[in-house]
Amino acid sequence: MGKKKVMLPTSEVDLSTVKYQYDKIEAPHLTGFWLKLFVKLLEAPVIGSLIISYLKKENKMVEILKNTVIPEAPMFKPEFPPQEPEAGVVLLEEDGKPVARVELALKCLPDYDPAKNWSSDTSASFRYWKIRDYAYAYRSKLTTPSIVAERFILAMDENNYKKPLAPLLISYDPEHIRKQAAASTQRFEEGKSLSILDGIFVAIKDDIDCYPHPSKGGTTFFHEIRPVEEDAASVSRLRSCGVVLVGKANMHELGLGTTGNNPNYGTARNPHDPKRYTGGSSSGPAAIVSSGLCSAALGTDGGGSIRIPSSLCGVVGLKSTYGRTDMTGSLCDSGTVEIIGAITSTVEDAILVYAAILGSSIADKIALKPSLPCLPSLSSHENSSALESIRLGKYTEWFNDVFSTDISEKCEDVLNRLSETYGCRTVEIVIPELREMRTAHLVSIGSEVLSGLNPELEDGKAEKFTCDTRTNLALFRSFTASDYVAAQCLRRRIMYFHMEIFKNVDVIVTPTTGMTAPLIPSNALKSGETDLQVTGNLMRFIATANLLGLPAISVPVGYDEQGLPVGLQLIGRPWCEATILRLAAAIEELCASPKKKPLQFYDILKGN
Amino acid sequence: MGKKKVMLPTSEVDLSTVKYQYDKIEAPHLTGFWLKLFVKLLEAPVIGSLIISYLKKENKMVEILKNTVIPEAPMFKPEFPPQEPEAGVVLLEEDGKPVARVELALKCLPDYDPAKNWSSDTSASFRYWKIRDYAYAYRSKLTTPSIVAERFILAMDENNYKKPLAPLLISYDPEHIRKQAAASTQRFEEGKSLSILDGIFVAIKDDIDCYPHPSKGGTTFFHEIRPVEEDAASVSRLRSCGVVLVGKANMHELGLGTTGNNPNYGTARNPHDPKRYTGGSSSGPAAIVSSGLCSAALGTDGGGSIRIPSSLCGVVGLKSTYGRTDMTGSLCDSGTVEIIGAITSTVEDAILVYAAILGSSIADKIALKPSLPCLPSLSSHENSSALESIRLGKYTEWFNDVFSTDISEKCEDVLNRLSETYGCRTVEIVIPELREMRTAHLVSIGSEVLSGLNPELEDGKAEKFTCDTRTNLALFRSFTASDYVAAQCLRRRIMYFHMEIFKNVDVIVTPTTGMTAPLIPSNALKSGETDLQVTGNLMRFIATANLLGLPAISVPVGYDEQGLPVGLQLIGRPWCEATILRLAAAIEELCASPKKKPLQFYDILKGN
Repeated sequence: MGKKKVMLPTSEVDLSTVKYQYDKIEAPHLTGFWLKLFVKLLEAPVIGSLIISYLKKENKMVEILKNTVIPEAPMFKPEFPPQEPEAGVVLLEEDGKPVARVELALKCLPDYDPAKNWSSDTSASFRYWKIRDYAYAYRSKLTTPSIVAERFILAMDENNYKKPLAPLLISYDPEHIRKQAAASTQRFEEGKSLSILDGIFVAIKDDIDCYPHPSKGGTTFFHEIRPVEEDAASVSRLRSCGVVLVGKANMHELGLGTTGNNPNYGTARNPHDPKRYTGGSSSGPAAIVSSGLCSAALGTDGGGSIRIPSSLCGVVGLKSTYGRTDMTGSLCDSGTVEIIGAITSTVEDAILVYAAILGSSIADKIALKPSLPCLPSLSSHENSSALESIRLGKYTEWFNDVFSTDISEKCEDVLNRLSETYGCRTVEIVIPELREMRTAHLVSIGSEVLSGLNPELEDGKAEKFTCDTRTNLALFRSFTASDYVAAQCLRRRIMYFHMEIFKNVDVIVTPTTGMTAPLIPSNALKSGETDLQVTGNLMRFIATANLLGLPAISVPVGYDEQGLPVGLQLIGRPWCEATILRLAAAIEELCASPKKKPLQFYDILKGN
Repeated sequence: MGKKKVMLPTSEVDLSTVKYQYDKIEAPHLTGFWLKLFVKLLEAPVIGSLIISYLKKENKMVEILKNTVIPEAPMFKPEFPPQEPEAGVVLLEEDGKPVARVELALKCLPDYDPAKNWSSDTSASFRYWKIRDYAYAYRSKLTTPSIVAERFILAMDENNYKKPLAPLLISYDPEHIRKQAAASTQRFEEGKSLSILDGIFVAIKDDIDCYPHPSKGGTTFFHEIRPVEEDAASVSRLRSCGVVLVGKANMHELGLGTTGNNPNYGTARNPHDPKRYTGGSSSGPAAIVSSGLCSAALGTDGGGSIRIPSSLCGVVGLKSTYGRTDMTGSLCDSGTVEIIGAITSTVEDAILVYAAILGSSIADKIALKPSLPCLPSLSSHENSSALESIRLGKYTEWFNDVFSTDISEKCEDVLNRLSETYGCRTVEIVIPELREMRTAHLVSIGSEVLSGLNPELEDGKAEKFTCDTRTNLALFRSFTASDYVAAQCLRRRIMYFHMEIFKNVDVIVTPTTGMTAPLIPSNALKSGETDLQVTGNLMRFIATANLLGLPAISVPVGYDEQGLPVGLQLIGRPWCEATILRLAAAIEELCASPKKKPLQFYDILKGN
């Protein structure tokens, strides 16, 4: 009795009274035996629901979803008000050929200067080979895709000798790579290369179809249920540009975790410190790019799964606007929060891959009416004036709510340099209902995933999942249909608040994650772990872009006191990928040196 | 184990293999003590979920929602492919003034001939006073709104003496009516009438706000939670046209039933047989129009709530396309299946009221992109050629699946006369997955209603509802979030099948209900009843228009062997209200005589 709360309509919420609420996630950290026992209890008929009910109450989920009158109507998918076109951008043909879009994207980049990029000055700070570096090397016959392929295979072999297993790829066939590389090499010999992406090595996250590899989604059995007959739409676009598809990258099982822990195949390691997690769920994609073995990887991001590992591994991760990329051929092809996006070592590579894969499906178009895809014209004279006009929104209490202050200080430092160098103004903002946002996001993604899995679970497959997944599924099963609808009403509220904020700022800036790469507990390798405190830290700044479908990018800005990569997140207006890409490119330049070389594989690949 | 079913993608479904599935709803018929006991059991912690689980399994809900792989992505709201514009129609200004739209609508009607409508030949078959009859009488000073008001009040008084109570209106103030009628009378005296609707008596269903009346939604307490401060958008549009708003019409509690049984205020009676139900949930609106006391009433239709009582009471009920009318100010303002629509005694009155109230809210527009509202030009010479081109889709096995064959025969007879008179062609169609459609509809509406009620239920208000409502809520509470998502995937399938069907036909025809007005069991008045067999019969043809958001109309076509009204349902293409209104007007003319006078109140009102 008397539990009812009533939310004010969004337009009446007084932002000056909003108090930042610190996360206090109440849940046990479990590994090994205790995790297995916990899962058994969770799945037991009565005690299971009691535990879940208790955890949901403690974490205010019942209060938010059941006891509160939410005056707004549900918003089941991101619905955006009409957007002003971005200034100083190049329009891309959404329905055109990927090769043509990549060609246009190339024109947006600053001129490529071989002298600068191929200097033999080894005292220069470390930098990754970019796509254009490979392209130049192939065209100048400094190397061939086939040579790169052999080194790649060597590095993979090296990795596969290690114990315990920590595979970057969980489906991988050297002959398949050699064949693609040879075809590309021949195209270069014949002067018939397909695009700037020809011969570029790309890994595909295991939840995106890449024929003839199976799509297991990091599970042991999903390929038996769902055979792969062709490439996913995004993969097929990349293939048409001539890339070498190296195989299926490791991931957190079903994408339902943020560390990348995977007891089924082994847990991919962070190339900057193999004792640490890569972050997840796109663990393999981030690690393979971070270690320099691939220029790019495709990941999926329904709850930070691209941005979190990109941040922890010191690479670039782009989550485009919901509906901007085509989900056809991915395991989660029908959710309301997930996209397919690129992980790359540099912003310009993210631009090239994004240009290749974009273009949404017809079903999405009907509901979404997307603005046309644009890229920033980085080579133009107007680039610095376009940068100058970008206003950065910062919610300082949120920004500073990190596990260790060197993360927020490093990010803060970048904002100061952006202001000094380009005159970007930082505007203090307040974002209400962050806890409600996280709850709405969790209920949305959980319910959408569970809906697809139910036939398998009911068919007796539940025990084939890892303990971590089963813990999550037990929680998801407890969400009621009316919880789901309430979460969608919250989505409308949060969208309103953000669209109001975006009247005054162009980009919202946060650290990408509230902590840098966590250590892997030794007893977590065999049966996994559940640690919602770590999850809370990794996901602190993540849900906005997923629940609201906004574009966001994680860009590396340096290292914390332990020498681990720190990422800054830029969240843009709906459809405004160009703005965050422009800003990310500028930040990358500001943070270029000194850069640390990853510990893993880079030297093997480069033939050192 | 082995329970998993896999649906074929919609485009691969072979319609020639579709078998019609007869409803076999497994649930007890309960009234009085047994109903109360059943509710107690349903609400008990463990036994309740066991009963619900059993009922859901028996009715294949678990099989459909949990065990089946549905390859389609969810469609959370009706999404329509672009529509061809209708031919021979008049466009209405959606954003214009209601008065201007009503003016345009008037021009669509055949000329009004006073001589024909005011003949003193009492041997002519019975017909209702239409809006234009009142308008003529007011303008010719044959009567005034004030005179009509006094007769209306007399009839209401007469009704209120009856025992047991069977109120048409549950919030009603004679002085309030006199005041509006006097103002209208004065406008006529001054030659300043506002529109053809000036002085027309209109009732508003109790779940739509009509200031200063409370909105109880047929409950005993909802007005305490949700005070009314202004008219609903649709009511305010009617008021601007000068109508006399008579009060809040009776309804099934919260709209969660199809009979109109209401133990809180008494159950409105069918004007054609007071021992029988009106149908529901818009029981009062249908009964007050059927008895001749109001020219029109507004109802809501989320699961047949306009069409079912219109059919059972022998009047016209229009359910417009989802998003065509504005739900602002109604209790269910944020669902995905419900609309506000008109119940009238004739099709031309439905056209006039529809023209006044249409216009959707901005939030809906963003998601829906509606086609412009149109009306059929009934007065034009092209009307009969427009009629001739209408192809009627009939799924004969479904059409004939009625409680008593005289219903389907009566409806079949109309199709034959349409063919003979206008050359309308009937095309045999097959509609797959009707059971899935009903399940998806039930889960959608139930979850959306429950989401709005949860804060009250958690706040200890559950026991204030009737047993019937509590039975429904217990079922709705059992729906999980993933059930809800699965239901939305089914919505995409069913939409696909119907859009395919609508490539070959313009209108789908069915009986409106599978039975005519059922008798009221004497022990059902005090504590209500639950009879899912009756619900199944009444809702057999209903869910399509709600789940898919399609326009539909119920038009009276005569009487069954017991002399009870039979309704024919026309389901149109998205946004194509004009087509079904045109056809309905033609059917009305074909079925004009002989028409039975309702037993209740008509004579009092007309001063006989």
